[in-house]
Amino acid sequence: MARLILSIDAMGGDNAPQVVLDGLDLFAARRPDVGFQIHGQRDQLMAALAGRDLLARCEVIHHDDVISMSEKPSAALRRSKGTSMGGAVGAVKTGAALAAVSAGNTGALMAISMLALRKMEGVHRPAMTAIWPTARGRSVVLDVGANLDADADQLVTFAIMGAAYARAVTGEANPTIGLLNIGSEEDKGNDTLKLAAERMRDPALGLNFKGYVEGNDISAGAVDVVVTDGFTGNVALKTAEGTARLVAGYVRTALTSSWLSKIGALLAGRGLKELRGRMDPSSVNGGVLLGLNGVVVKSHGGTDAAGFATALDLAAQLAGSQYRQEVADGLARLVQSPAVAEAVT
Amino acid sequence: MARLILSIDAMGGDNAPQVVLDGLDLFAARRPDVGFQIHGQRDQLMAALAGRDLLARCEVIHHDDVISMSEKPSAALRRSKGTSMGGAVGAVKTGAALAAVSAGNTGALMAISMLALRKMEGVHRPAMTAIWPTARGRSVVLDVGANLDADADQLVTFAIMGAAYARAVTGEANPTIGLLNIGSEEDKGNDTLKLAAERMRDPALGLNFKGYVEGNDISAGAVDVVVTDGFTGNVALKTAEGTARLVAGYVRTALTSSWLSKIGALLAGRGLKELRGRMDPSSVNGGVLLGLNGVVVKSHGGTDAAGFATALDLAAQLAGSQYRQEVADGLARLVQSPAVAEAVT
Repeated sequence: MARLILSIDAMGGDNAPQVVLDGLDLFAARRPDVGFQIHGQRDQLMAALAGRDLLARCEVIHHDDVISMSEKPSAALRRSKGTSMGGAVGAVKTGAALAAVSAGNTGALMAISMLALRKMEGVHRPAMTAIWPTARGRSVVLDVGANLDADADQLVTFAIMGAAYARAVTGEANPTIGLLNIGSEEDKGNDTLKLAAERMRDPALGLNFKGYVEGNDISAGAVDVVVTDGFTGNVALKTAEGTARLVAGYVRTALTSSWLSKIGALLAGRGLKELRGRMDPSSVNGGVLLGLNGVVVKSHGGTDAAGFATALDLAAQLAGSQYRQEVADGLARLVQSPAVAEAVT
Repeated sequence: MARLILSIDAMGGDNAPQVVLDGLDLFAARRPDVGFQIHGQRDQLMAALAGRDLLARCEVIHHDDVISMSEKPSAALRRSKGTSMGGAVGAVKTGAALAAVSAGNTGALMAISMLALRKMEGVHRPAMTAIWPTARGRSVVLDVGANLDADADQLVTFAIMGAAYARAVTGEANPTIGLLNIGSEEDKGNDTLKLAAERMRDPALGLNFKGYVEGNDISAGAVDVVVTDGFTGNVALKTAEGTARLVAGYVRTALTSSWLSKIGALLAGRGLKELRGRMDPSSVNGGVLLGLNGVVVKSHGGTDAAGFATALDLAAQLAGSQYRQEVADGLARLVQSPAVAEAVT
């Protein structure tokens, strides 16, 4: 029997359940130690699972309903019971699974997860994270859209959660942290950012805080964890995706503009294949809503099988790590630190 | 005698005055109708101008001092008289020149320009613009850093100024406008954005408003003008620059990873040369602080001669356009529109 169990919303995403099951196949081959709870419509799933090795390692749990990609979070929340998404998240709550993965409706997944798993003590606002490819490897950026804004205290908790998360998924022992701003000098930014920076510098918190970073520092990999409010983080993430797509289009045009360039592209085949791999969004798929009593990973709705497998990797890494304990320890240090004590009194 | 005069801060930027004068040479060859006032240290400039055709088309105006790249705006403002930057901006105030261009200290240039030229009637906050390369051509994004935040009224004035600016520099007769948000649905975003969107939809303002856009829509060229607050716009701009740099690095690695790929890159030479041209930041150099009684263009401090020439192109285009009159007309419509009348009473 497998030791680590992941619960999967098999019906979420643009091409469910096909892409979900294909992704599970890829991941299962890499991780023979993991078992699965697959939530969705039994008949459809059994037909799709027929002939797959996966069948032996999974339990199929039936739910009549599916939350659609366009459903409002409030509506989804009301009818979450009886849906594949509600079932997958519920399995983490009961302890039947250690982490849940869904490619379904983001707002609905956040709402259902918050209600089912509740916020960790000391967390006022959970934060959505993104793994960001950089010139030095990968960085963690949060919040990328769980909230519209964040006050100084919330930014500090994002730093604590982001550092623990980076440790779990990148293996970096003491991740560096930067606060996103529009200049690196100490006098830049609004009062919220200045206050947050002051607190992050507090040695009692044990954060490896490097000060302010700017937008270009994210892709440069200047720090391991970039902290920002959900509005700014979401705009930055989507702007980067759009820019990468634009430049990839330029490259495609450049390498197909003439017969000579096409022959050149053929000769450069291996290098360009590696380039495609690096540019492939599926290699960094998976957002995690940090700050809950349990792990829920959100996959892109339009991802392919390889991307869904990446999201599963992330779920397994987090489920097998100490990150929740580290977040709890960090939040405890925050509560004991003088800056917060002052703010509270 | 040339009809259109541009005033140039010859001492601003990382490699002044060399890069500035080289850029002037490039631009002068394209625009025989333009003359120049060159502000800076006379001896140094005369030596650098010796032997250049430029000499016949420019007036050199001596200033003892230079504002350094690291100087605080407040300090720069106090000693602006007697500096090359203060002189270049002052020439626009007196009418000796129609537009000023500087590659110097951004904060200092904004402060000096605001004091010397004053805000246009109806403008509470000037906005810094960027020209953004897109899949469809070029778009205008503002504010990219003149202010830390913006209320709904200010966002509406940014839309009016951005549309007039886009008309002047892209030739688009009726530029489309989008408001940057973290979702395109009407219920997304905070109250400031919702109020701004409601006002931009007012037919009396005559704006071609298309609703909310997201970060990825900027590079896609979904609209001609993207309106946002200075914090978000600055983060988006720098994030895009960082991402483009990262992807360009990937491409370089891909095309030099083996002998075959190097030969391939040689064969694809022309296409790749065009690619380099498209990726070249100098092709979109030049930010304008909109909303003042006069045109001041800020060039990147680290630009090359081609980039400085691009900033000069922008200055000449704006100086020769109707954009200030159009902004004045748009602001007049705003003052007469009911939404603002309500807010005022």
